[in-house]
Amino acid sequence: MLTDTASLQTVLDVVGVLVFALSGAIVAVRRGLDLFGILVLAWVAGLGGGIIRDLFLGITPPVAVSDWRLLAAAVTAGLGVFLLHGTWEQALLARPHARWRRVSSVVRLLDAAGLAVFAVSGALVALDRGAGPLAATLIGGITAVGGGMLRDVLARQVPEVLQRELYAVPALAGAALVVLLQHLGLLSPLTAWGAVVLVFVIRVVAVALDLNAPRALRSTPVD
Amino acid sequence: MLTDTASLQTVLDVVGVLVFALSGAIVAVRRGLDLFGILVLAWVAGLGGGIIRDLFLGITPPVAVSDWRLLAAAVTAGLGVFLLHGTWEQALLARPHARWRRVSSVVRLLDAAGLAVFAVSGALVALDRGAGPLAATLIGGITAVGGGMLRDVLARQVPEVLQRELYAVPALAGAALVVLLQHLGLLSPLTAWGAVVLVFVIRVVAVALDLNAPRALRSTPVD
Amino acid sequence: MLTDTASLQTVLDVVGVLVFALSGAIVAVRRGLDLFGILVLAWVAGLGGGIIRDLFLGITPPVAVSDWRLLAAAVTAGLGVFLLHGTWEQALLARPHARWRRVSSVVRLLDAAGLAVFAVSGALVALDRGAGPLAATLIGGITAVGGGMLRDVLARQVPEVLQRELYAVPALAGAALVVLLQHLGLLSPLTAWGAVVLVFVIRVVAVALDLNAPRALRSTPVD
Repeated sequence: MLTDTASLQTVLDVVGVLVFALSGAIVAVRRGLDLFGILVLAWVAGLGGGIIRDLFLGITPPVAVSDWRLLAAAVTAGLGVFLLHGTWEQALLARPHARWRRVSSVVRLLDAAGLAVFAVSGALVALDRGAGPLAATLIGGITAVGGGMLRDVLARQVPEVLQRELYAVPALAGAALVVLLQHLGLLSPLTAWGAVVLVFVIRVVAVALDLNAPRALRSTPVD
Repeated sequence: MLTDTASLQTVLDVVGVLVFALSGAIVAVRRGLDLFGILVLAWVAGLGGGIIRDLFLGITPPVAVSDWRLLAAAVTAGLGVFLLHGTWEQALLARPHARWRRVSSVVRLLDAAGLAVFAVSGALVALDRGAGPLAATLIGGITAVGGGMLRDVLARQVPEVLQRELYAVPALAGAALVVLLQHLGLLSPLTAWGAVVLVFVIRVVAVALDLNAPRALRSTPVD
Repeated sequence: MLTDTASLQTVLDVVGVLVFALSGAIVAVRRGLDLFGILVLAWVAGLGGGIIRDLFLGITPPVAVSDWRLLAAAVTAGLGVFLLHGTWEQALLARPHARWRRVSSVVRLLDAAGLAVFAVSGALVALDRGAGPLAATLIGGITAVGGGMLRDVLARQVPEVLQRELYAVPALAGAALVVLLQHLGLLSPLTAWGAVVLVFVIRVVAVALDLNAPRALRSTPVD
């Protein structure tokens, strides 16, 4: 098992890059982009959050450009989606009523997994670099939402973080939990993965139940 | 009163975050976003410029994630708009001819205030970190336009900085004035706030008079 | 001729800023922006890539705000396009069948030149700051595509890097070539400019032949 913080961080990073890169690659296919467009969007979605995290913490160059394993994870995700997309769609056509056939549901599941992993990873790295509790929590949240945000801005769709269901909240909660665990001396690979699972579950439940935050009252549209 | 540079910078930052965050929150309500979308856009608009400033100056982590007062200012602005928006709209409906009823005018006024405050704050922090005159002027200008630019990109509207009336020019002028004041040994909280007022007035007059820069001659649309 | 790395980097930077700023200014005119909008988009397109490069390498403040020559190059490009645009369009109207009359072709040529110059410049600066081979290659690629990406996001058009023809590939190839040349001890101003020409030619040929990467198979549109 994982015994030290460095390897825990690396595993979290590779998993997070992989799932976010898959989400980026699928969005790219949906937009009709070619192989290189798919790879670019996979890279941006997978590594964007970590790049923001590293810039915020003064880690230069960001691990996203210096660690070949992260690059390999993003490229693998992009190539995988490129090669398997046709097969997958054929399988979906054979089962027209499957709920998971909607591409957007798959993207949201992957996005939820990336959100969970990067919230914890962001907070861990920030604590490791001596950031205070508030900074570590916010950096965890920003790391989690950053990649998806860049993906959506480049693909010109409404950023997930501004959509209706709870999105940044589970990420911030997960990062705050990591900060609390460290403060209590309970931070270990096991509890860190527990925080990942918690964020993922909250986010998936929020999407499934369409849990919305309240909106400001608007009597009539006013420009 | 303010006696040292550090407290001047903090007051400028809190005021700037507050007004820019209000602008972000109002744009979010207009887009039909829910409470968390409002808070995200308030945070991005309020703190985006300062984050860019800090990254440009190597201040890590950016004060936007480490100073709870800035976070509190952004959250207060977001919650305030969320809670009061309904009431405000009802009041507006009762006075259909009020010029300030247009939401976009209110956003632009707030945006002008944030622009003015951050232009001065950005130049001050840059000088404080040893940046040269040119760098301090440009960083002041970028700090001033950065938050509004991120707000507009995320909310998918045309960035204010590319709109028609004078926008970046007053910001750059205010930052240059701060650099000049420091060079002349005249920089004090009083003169700094004078520069803030100057930028604000120029911007508001530009919007009010619809002062446009000239455009390139275009005989016919050519693709 | 150029005898040292520093002056080579400066020349590359000035040329790259100039051509990318021209592309930004032309896009701005096409969007109907006024003089200041043109200058902003010229600045963003010309200096965006170098800013990302410097932030990735911990060079603060970025040379984009501290070197007046880069600012002068961007402003010159913006003013030039602003002043000459009318004349140029009249000349085009007189030759309705000229292939280069399409504004988008001119933007793409300039963009290709900027891509080539910044790919090499990005890799050179990264190597100079002690980045490893992988990081130097990726930073070269990101420097090359960054300015155009920011230009397109702000101008709300589909980023060139996600478009159909080979775009990031020639940039990454050029950066990798610089890394290889340095490894072999063959890096000189001559070979560096050779790499620039190579990237430019690959990109222009890709556009001219409409060289597309393959796309993922899609039997039917699925949401």
